[in-house]
Amino acid sequence: MTTAVDKAKQLLPRVIIEHVSPEIDGGLFPIKRIVHEVVCVEADIYTEGHNSVNAFLLYRKCGDTTWTTVSMIAIGNDRWQGELVITHDVDYEYSLQAWVNDFETWQIDFRKKIDAGQDVTVDILAGIQYLEAISGKEKAVKRFDVLRGQIRKSSSSAETQKLLLSEELLKLTQEIPASSTCVSYEKTLKVHVEPQKALVSSWYEFFPRSFGKNGAHGTFKDAESILPVIARMGFDVVYFPPIHPIGDTNRKGRNNARTGKTGDPGSPWAIGNKDGGHKAIHSQLGKMEDFQKLVRTAESLGINIALDLAYQCSPDHPYVKEHPEWFFKRPDGSIQYAENPPKKYEDVYPINFYCENSAELWDELKSVVDFWIDKGVKIFRVDNPHTKPFAFWAWMIREIRKKHRDVIFLAEAFTRPNIMKQLAKLGFHQSYTYFTWRPMKSDLIEYVNELTRTESREYFRPNFWPNTPDILPYHLQSGGRPAFISRFVLAATLSSNYGIYGPAFDLCVKDAVVEKEEYFESEKYEIKKWDWDAPGNLKDLMTRVNKIRKENVALQTTWNVQFCDVNNDQLIAYVKTSPDYKNIILVVVNLDSSNTQSGMIKVPLHEWGIPYDKPYKIKDLLTRDEYIWNGDWNFVELNPYKIPAHIFCIK
Amino acid sequence: MTTAVDKAKQLLPRVIIEHVSPEIDGGLFPIKRIVHEVVCVEADIYTEGHNSVNAFLLYRKCGDTTWTTVSMIAIGNDRWQGELVITHDVDYEYSLQAWVNDFETWQIDFRKKIDAGQDVTVDILAGIQYLEAISGKEKAVKRFDVLRGQIRKSSSSAETQKLLLSEELLKLTQEIPASSTCVSYEKTLKVHVEPQKALVSSWYEFFPRSFGKNGAHGTFKDAESILPVIARMGFDVVYFPPIHPIGDTNRKGRNNARTGKTGDPGSPWAIGNKDGGHKAIHSQLGKMEDFQKLVRTAESLGINIALDLAYQCSPDHPYVKEHPEWFFKRPDGSIQYAENPPKKYEDVYPINFYCENSAELWDELKSVVDFWIDKGVKIFRVDNPHTKPFAFWAWMIREIRKKHRDVIFLAEAFTRPNIMKQLAKLGFHQSYTYFTWRPMKSDLIEYVNELTRTESREYFRPNFWPNTPDILPYHLQSGGRPAFISRFVLAATLSSNYGIYGPAFDLCVKDAVVEKEEYFESEKYEIKKWDWDAPGNLKDLMTRVNKIRKENVALQTTWNVQFCDVNNDQLIAYVKTSPDYKNIILVVVNLDSSNTQSGMIKVPLHEWGIPYDKPYKIKDLLTRDEYIWNGDWNFVELNPYKIPAHIFCIK
Repeated sequence: MTTAVDKAKQLLPRVIIEHVSPEIDGGLFPIKRIVHEVVCVEADIYTEGHNSVNAFLLYRKCGDTTWTTVSMIAIGNDRWQGELVITHDVDYEYSLQAWVNDFETWQIDFRKKIDAGQDVTVDILAGIQYLEAISGKEKAVKRFDVLRGQIRKSSSSAETQKLLLSEELLKLTQEIPASSTCVSYEKTLKVHVEPQKALVSSWYEFFPRSFGKNGAHGTFKDAESILPVIARMGFDVVYFPPIHPIGDTNRKGRNNARTGKTGDPGSPWAIGNKDGGHKAIHSQLGKMEDFQKLVRTAESLGINIALDLAYQCSPDHPYVKEHPEWFFKRPDGSIQYAENPPKKYEDVYPINFYCENSAELWDELKSVVDFWIDKGVKIFRVDNPHTKPFAFWAWMIREIRKKHRDVIFLAEAFTRPNIMKQLAKLGFHQSYTYFTWRPMKSDLIEYVNELTRTESREYFRPNFWPNTPDILPYHLQSGGRPAFISRFVLAATLSSNYGIYGPAFDLCVKDAVVEKEEYFESEKYEIKKWDWDAPGNLKDLMTRVNKIRKENVALQTTWNVQFCDVNNDQLIAYVKTSPDYKNIILVVVNLDSSNTQSGMIKVPLHEWGIPYDKPYKIKDLLTRDEYIWNGDWNFVELNPYKIPAHIFCIK
Repeated sequence: MTTAVDKAKQLLPRVIIEHVSPEIDGGLFPIKRIVHEVVCVEADIYTEGHNSVNAFLLYRKCGDTTWTTVSMIAIGNDRWQGELVITHDVDYEYSLQAWVNDFETWQIDFRKKIDAGQDVTVDILAGIQYLEAISGKEKAVKRFDVLRGQIRKSSSSAETQKLLLSEELLKLTQEIPASSTCVSYEKTLKVHVEPQKALVSSWYEFFPRSFGKNGAHGTFKDAESILPVIARMGFDVVYFPPIHPIGDTNRKGRNNARTGKTGDPGSPWAIGNKDGGHKAIHSQLGKMEDFQKLVRTAESLGINIALDLAYQCSPDHPYVKEHPEWFFKRPDGSIQYAENPPKKYEDVYPINFYCENSAELWDELKSVVDFWIDKGVKIFRVDNPHTKPFAFWAWMIREIRKKHRDVIFLAEAFTRPNIMKQLAKLGFHQSYTYFTWRPMKSDLIEYVNELTRTESREYFRPNFWPNTPDILPYHLQSGGRPAFISRFVLAATLSSNYGIYGPAFDLCVKDAVVEKEEYFESEKYEIKKWDWDAPGNLKDLMTRVNKIRKENVALQTTWNVQFCDVNNDQLIAYVKTSPDYKNIILVVVNLDSSNTQSGMIKVPLHEWGIPYDKPYKIKDLLTRDEYIWNGDWNFVELNPYKIPAHIFCIK
């Protein structure tokens, strides 16, 4: 045989396995799961003509030497499907195997011939030949040998025929790869298994400095004292803006004034002064012991403290003196401050990740993360990761993950879609999203479907934020309290990861800089005094919603959203169910903050196994009201001034 | 720097180039083009943050050592696009390159600062620094150096500023890759450049044995004598069913009778008897010299003779005696005949491509193609390629192509989509399609859009057949002459490759076996006497349509179909235009074979540059009638008994 023939046989083996999914960028990146999640693997698998093929999904924990096999099933048009369930908190890998099943091809034809009343004497012999050719080490072989033995000993042609047509026999042959035609998919694909909180988390962001008592600068001790309140509200991640010393040079004043006045606290994102940089604590917040005590208290309440990882420096950061070469130098010899022309951020120097001694720089930056992990921190919200090299994050997150599989990174990258996806592919566990700017029903549906029904669901875990210290969206400015409630319910029920920028949200603060989405008198530049229990606050609502999230597994994943038809564009409705349909949640939200809206909603009754002609009970978990519904189309009405949302549980 | 860092930088270089298209199965297969066709390459290209990137499409003729570069353009959302035109009949390859353009990033910011009235003294120095860092060997460097020189010599800050903002300067920097950040795409992708007829061909299939004079068995001489008629009708490929000796054993009788009567000619697909096999000629057709003369005459008329390549043997084929091991053996020692249970084809033995001495077998099968190429044949219509190994075809076609780039293979694979696509990917130049069974408007539009607007257009060239000797579709049986005309016009204008199974089509033969799509008294099993000039024949129509195809370049490609809105489901309308819009064709077909249908049709007037408020002329190239239209919606009416189609030319 010539080499060209061999090459062709390698390129195109007897059985083709192609278009495997999930497979991110040809296998360059892993997919992501948490324990108990399922990986549904599909591929186009076929051979020439009408020969039957069978296929295995192979999987194993990384490091294991043997594969577990799952018989794949044909779902039409040569597409095959197999599932694996993640049972352990280790990484997995998977691949595929497929082969020609001559016995199956034969059995299909054999049945047709019998149905047509043809003489099958020789065919019986052929069938037996195919059976005799089968061998292997699979579990199925034992039982298969018993059946094969029965055929050998069969006393009549009629009996042989019946045995040969057996479904069980066929099924067994489908579990024993034919060595002569068996093809292995050329790639081994990876599954990163990540902590539970990577998928399910509710974030509460606040500035500890604003929680001081009697007008004093807030401390870690103050922050610690309010943790029980936040825990009662049901949040399980508390995220602090940077807690490090704040620079003095070019310190920003209130309302983002280019120069601050004496006593202005400055922006916490201008990191570093004579007291230290990214490994130090702003002196007015307390000491390292205070911080560690806070972390421990939080943990005892089921809360993780998330730190802000903002790789940038104030002009007073020790790095600037010790390593001026880590920054960009301007032609006049000065160090380049951050800018987004015509805006200037003179209180911040960006870091030059591709400077000459970048090895040393990258190591130092990674050591910041190691430092805080050592202090008990497990979650990092990364500031603007999209302005730093992809390679840096890929390397850093991989290195951290080698020792600390339980550490989570959230990417704050409000930027173009490809960049956001790249950061998720290379390792970020969670990502901020465009949810913040999707107030309209059609946009919301399109976006959530894009997040949950395209390939990105394999690696991009959304974290929905209705607001942040940087963003007070126009619809919250204009919509007031009803808008805050509806956006909160949407975030907390559409996505299993969500977060709010705390008191400003609880209190429905809607004062913005004119024609901007920037908070007026932003907490970024001043210390606020929050009247946390002011009338109209959303604490109770949040408490209820978070309780509902905890009690209903259907809300503990993002991947199961299914939108419902509603004959009113101001009402959005969606269903989330547990895989066993024991937990069925229907959320309806009025997107109109000013008017009562009503309409008919269609629910997928057939999927739930509820008959169309019998009444069934639904209960609003927010108000505890119960309703009797009938069939798939039912009426809903929501008054935004009472409450603009239903979270129904269907019994 | 640690190895992990290096690895990360390799995996994720400064500039990401991903999701390149076209790229078939990760580059496993080439795309296909003919000379003068364009390859439009796209990719997602971006770097971190808001830094500007630039990109080159690189291409070259295979074997060349230097690349031609084309600046790619950004088409939004980080997607970049570049085009290459195939100018020579050799294979091409292409790749991509991208880099960060610091000067461009700087210039964008610089303009914003000037617009904001900021002091830009230091920025000017920075811009000059970026310019000084640029070097390269590209053509652009020469002119760039002139401009850079002007800046160096500039006498005033205002002049420097103006020079630095120059569009020309920016454009030049976009053509000089920055060596420090330049990334090359890791794959080199291939373009197979194939003969013109692979894309544009009109096929006429007939059985030479049916064209004998005075009741005799037709010969090659008879066939040769009717070639001028076929050439006048405008066909440029004449395809013969197998011309080889026909087996005697189990020879089929008329109407597919299992046993023939004495004198029955048998099916030409039962190849081989004592006179020879695939390299021999059925004695009643003539001698090899006659065949070669026929091929030469055809060529002088612009016609290629296409042979049927059916790798199967009658029981009397010499291979059966000489190489019984090339066939499947049944348990009773007999050779396995072809079957599709419960149907048996006892006049045909399939070949065992995976027999033990398959190397020898494959070589012999390839030598059949070499043999006929040597006799002047350039086109092969391959019978049921999907029942033979993919690897065989990949190897065979590649080997033939090494010596004979002008040879074309058409895959007669009426089977599942993945298999049809695989055959096209591995090398078949043209493919039969589901067009044959798509009589309804919505199905036709969906299918044609699938063929022309998805990735398969890069490798799968459709050949539309309204009928074949195996298939007389139900819509032709019931629709009669109007249906034959409308299906012909559809095939010949939707697809640049089309074909008909000749006299039976020209004469609108619609008698089928009851409840089957099989011809009654099929020519496959008997010699027909066609009254080729019988009333109602379609020769004139075909002549006209083929002439229109030749005179209108818009009809010489399949990739430019654009369907129009019509407010009548029985009327289908589509536009095809040349890239320069000098040739605009609008086809309208009435799919209802019984009733006159009329409706309003919307044409893309804005694309053609015709004003909405001025009348324009359109001419029906079939009837030569002229009409004056106005605006984009116009009225059309088609009476199937007159003619069920318009082929309009828009001036």
